[in-house]
Amino acid sequence: MIPRNGLCVGLDLDLEKLPAPYQKQVVDLQRFGCDVVDATRGAASCYKLNLAFYEQYGREGIDALYAIREHIGDAYVIADAKRGDIGNTSAAYAKAVFEDLKADAVTVSPYMGRDSVGPFLDVPGKMVYVLALTSNPGSHDFQRRLVGDTPLYELVMNTVLSWPRSGDVGFVVGATNAAELSMLRTKFPDAPLLIPGIGTQGGDTQETLTANAMGPAVFNVSRGLLYADGSESCMETIHRLAETYNAQMQF
Amino acid sequence: MIPRNGLCVGLDLDLEKLPAPYQKQVVDLQRFGCDVVDATRGAASCYKLNLAFYEQYGREGIDALYAIREHIGDAYVIADAKRGDIGNTSAAYAKAVFEDLKADAVTVSPYMGRDSVGPFLDVPGKMVYVLALTSNPGSHDFQRRLVGDTPLYELVMNTVLSWPRSGDVGFVVGATNAAELSMLRTKFPDAPLLIPGIGTQGGDTQETLTANAMGPAVFNVSRGLLYADGSESCMETIHRLAETYNAQMQF
Repeated sequence: MIPRNGLCVGLDLDLEKLPAPYQKQVVDLQRFGCDVVDATRGAASCYKLNLAFYEQYGREGIDALYAIREHIGDAYVIADAKRGDIGNTSAAYAKAVFEDLKADAVTVSPYMGRDSVGPFLDVPGKMVYVLALTSNPGSHDFQRRLVGDTPLYELVMNTVLSWPRSGDVGFVVGATNAAELSMLRTKFPDAPLLIPGIGTQGGDTQETLTANAMGPAVFNVSRGLLYADGSESCMETIHRLAETYNAQMQF
Repeated sequence: MIPRNGLCVGLDLDLEKLPAPYQKQVVDLQRFGCDVVDATRGAASCYKLNLAFYEQYGREGIDALYAIREHIGDAYVIADAKRGDIGNTSAAYAKAVFEDLKADAVTVSPYMGRDSVGPFLDVPGKMVYVLALTSNPGSHDFQRRLVGDTPLYELVMNTVLSWPRSGDVGFVVGATNAAELSMLRTKFPDAPLLIPGIGTQGGDTQETLTANAMGPAVFNVSRGLLYADGSESCMETIHRLAETYNAQMQF
């Protein structure tokens, strides 16, 4: 199942950045995460749980991850895991994110090819976002390199779309280069995209929406939303910003 | 720090495959893992903890992972994580595997480029194995594709070796095609390799060793060692097989 178009709230929780009302301890990280969920309900099309931000706090962090996921309830959850391994190992990762964490979607790295993505695609009712063109500077190192006359990220998209699947498939395409997104939409007008990079990473909302050309998409905002206000009134700010983003992102 | 050449015991623990003395419950998975470590101490150059196999059992599985890691003690530990994300997220993953799990080395996916691998390379005293040419069928989908006249996996190796680092760097190169490994060793004679694929995946020990041409390497065996004997005497078999593998893998 693909999420409805609009705002994806990225719950990249970082102890060092918590606003004033929260202490630098994992229990407060969890409280902050749940408060953000409450402040953005209705505005968020989906929530993105980036597993790294929880794993960095060891088992306590994993407990916070599961607690926040439970707090999200019925809203759509993307496990931003960027996993990918040989078949039997990817099957174990698919079980971890879809059965244990009960995510609706997962991000997957394509580097190891079909049998590494397959176990995620095999799960009916779930969604896989394969990394295509990411929003970071390192996307120039390999993703844009030409294979024949096709950039690797485009080869990845064409190849992945040719594989059998039981669930839905889409791609991660960064918002930091609107011209590329626009070009990509002429070739893949209907591919569901997870578009990170708006806010702190430099992507502009309006430019990104124009470049997206009404294709199915969720637009992730993490740091630019969560840490916009370090004061006691942070949750009001987060609520207001989420509503504004959501209003801009309707189409 | 790079591990000494020889046998890497892959602790790919799977409830469905546990030998007769163990029940199908996570507490027994942990017991089996610790018993395997005891049966292979001395023979193993290092242990590879594939995080997927623990994550698939949720928080109980993560607890087993940490308990087994502690049981391994001072022996060299590779966290087989295949992570890779934008810079600040990779930094969080690096913290998770090096500080929380206290691994000596980690496997990382190159797809997102330099700033996704950098935070792992930045940690002094630690080791990063970047995915180059993997042992699975899907390695044909992208890794072997030509960028100009260079296969992508070779471009990955050359590029990664050109990046600054504070720790050590090596590559994951599968054992399932000895001719390719041999060719790769002529170009990268000194690169430390993590070579999976021996045993169940089809790689032959002697052929792989010959192809490796005395380059620094650890050879991972997982299923072919752990589940070779389903009976009460499984630990004697595992001990004996590990000693045999280790003897074959000395050079």
